[in-house]
Amino acid sequence: MSPEAAKARRSASDVQALVFDTYGTVVDWRGGVLEALVALGRSRGLAVDWERFLADWNARPIIDRVNRGEVPWMTMESVHQRALETPLSRYDIAGLTDREIDDLVRARWRLTPWPDAVPGLTRLKQRYVISPLSNASFVGMVRLAKFAGLPWDCVITAENARWYKPRPEVYRTAVSLLGLRPDQVMMVAAHNYDLRAAQGEGLQTAFVPRPLEYGPEQTTDLAPEGDWDIVAQDFLDLAAQLDASWPR
Amino acid sequence: MSPEAAKARRSASDVQALVFDTYGTVVDWRGGVLEALVALGRSRGLAVDWERFLADWNARPIIDRVNRGEVPWMTMESVHQRALETPLSRYDIAGLTDREIDDLVRARWRLTPWPDAVPGLTRLKQRYVISPLSNASFVGMVRLAKFAGLPWDCVITAENARWYKPRPEVYRTAVSLLGLRPDQVMMVAAHNYDLRAAQGEGLQTAFVPRPLEYGPEQTTDLAPEGDWDIVAQDFLDLAAQLDASWPR
Repeated sequence: MSPEAAKARRSASDVQALVFDTYGTVVDWRGGVLEALVALGRSRGLAVDWERFLADWNARPIIDRVNRGEVPWMTMESVHQRALETPLSRYDIAGLTDREIDDLVRARWRLTPWPDAVPGLTRLKQRYVISPLSNASFVGMVRLAKFAGLPWDCVITAENARWYKPRPEVYRTAVSLLGLRPDQVMMVAAHNYDLRAAQGEGLQTAFVPRPLEYGPEQTTDLAPEGDWDIVAQDFLDLAAQLDASWPR
Repeated sequence: MSPEAAKARRSASDVQALVFDTYGTVVDWRGGVLEALVALGRSRGLAVDWERFLADWNARPIIDRVNRGEVPWMTMESVHQRALETPLSRYDIAGLTDREIDDLVRARWRLTPWPDAVPGLTRLKQRYVISPLSNASFVGMVRLAKFAGLPWDCVITAENARWYKPRPEVYRTAVSLLGLRPDQVMMVAAHNYDLRAAQGEGLQTAFVPRPLEYGPEQTTDLAPEGDWDIVAQDFLDLAAQLDASWPR
C-alpha cells in the first residue's frame, strides 16, 4: 500500500493513544530555564545576556552524535550538562559548583505548561491514553509531570528506546509499549521534524504551533510543513477536532 | 559494607519512590478473572469448576522459561494465552474464538483495587513518586490504571526490562529509569519472593499481606518471611508508617 493509500484508509477515529512532545509543545521550557539562569546571575553577581547564553546552550549537536552512534547513550541531564560547557566558556563563567550546575540542568524538571495544556490533556484523557514522547529522561518527565500537574496515563521517553528523536526506534518503542498499531497512535508536536519522523513510522500526526517557544523572534515551526492529519490552535482545539472525527 | 551495615545506615526517610507489585498487591486479580471465566461459562453453557480452572491457569512455568532464556521475551498477554492451553485441554474446552480468548486474557486489564489501594496511593503520591513494578505488559498496566483509577506518576513494568521478576534486571531498570539510588526506592508487595529479589538489588522493602489474593484457602504469603523494612496492614498503614519515619 502506498503512503497516500495508507493515509486515505485511516482516520482520526482510529486513534487510541496520543503521544506528546513535551518541551515546547506542552510546557514553556525557555521561560523556566531563563528564570533559573537569571537567578544564578543574581546570586553570583554575573552580568550576562542570558537570552543569548540560553540560545548558545544547545543540546542538538550532542544528541546528533548519540544518534549517529559516535558516543554512547546518555540521559538528557548528561547531554545538557555537557552542552552547558559551550556557553559557560563563551561567557567566561568558571567555578560553578556541582549544585549550581545541577540546578540549571534540573530547571527543566520545573516548567510551566502553556495555558491550554492541562485543561486540554485532561479532556483528551477521557477518551485516549495520553503519554509524553519526549527526548527528556524518564525521571525528567516524571518530575515535570508532578511539578506541573500533567495528567499523563504513563510516561514514555527517548530513554525507553535509548535513542533520541527523530530516530525511528523512539516512535517504534512507544507504539510497541502501548500495544497498538502505528496508525492508532497520534504524535502531537509543535515541531515539524518530529511529526515527519513519526509519520515515517506510520503514526498519525497533529501539529500544534507554539510560536513563542523560542521567544518573540522565533522563525521556525510557525506553520505546518507537512501533510499532518490535524493542525490545531492548541490542545482544546485538538480535542474538539478529534471529537468531530468520531463517527456519528 | 555488609548488607546489615547497609541496612543500618539507610532509613525509610531516604525513600523517594515507591514501586508496587500490582496483581494481588494493588488489585484483586483473582476475583476479576474468575468473573470473566464464569461469564464465558454462562455464554457457552459450560459446566466447569472455574475456581479449579483458574488455579490451573498458571503463568509461572512460562515466565520461568523466559527468565532462563529458554524462550524469547514475550509479553504477559502472550504468556497468559499460552498458559491457558493447559486448563482448556484439562477441562475439555475447545473451539473458543480469538475474541473469547482475548477477553479472558484482557480480564486482567479490568480489575478491582483492594479497598485501601486508591486512597492509600493517593496519599502516598503527595510525598513520593509512585509507580507499578509489575510483571504485566506495559499496556496492561496502562489500561488497568485507567480502568481502576490508579493514580500512578508513571508506569514501569517487566516489559521495560524484557525480563520478568524476580530477575534482577527488572528492579535495576526501575531504579535506573527513576534516576535514583536503589535505597531511595521501596518495593511494595504482597509476595515475599518479590521483596527478596528487590532487597537483593538494594531496594528498600514493604510487605503488605493480601491474605485473600488466592481465595479463602490461601496458604502462602500470609506473613513476612524476610527482614523487610516495613510490614504494613494496608496502604494507609504504609503511608502512616512512612510519615512516622520522617525526621521531626
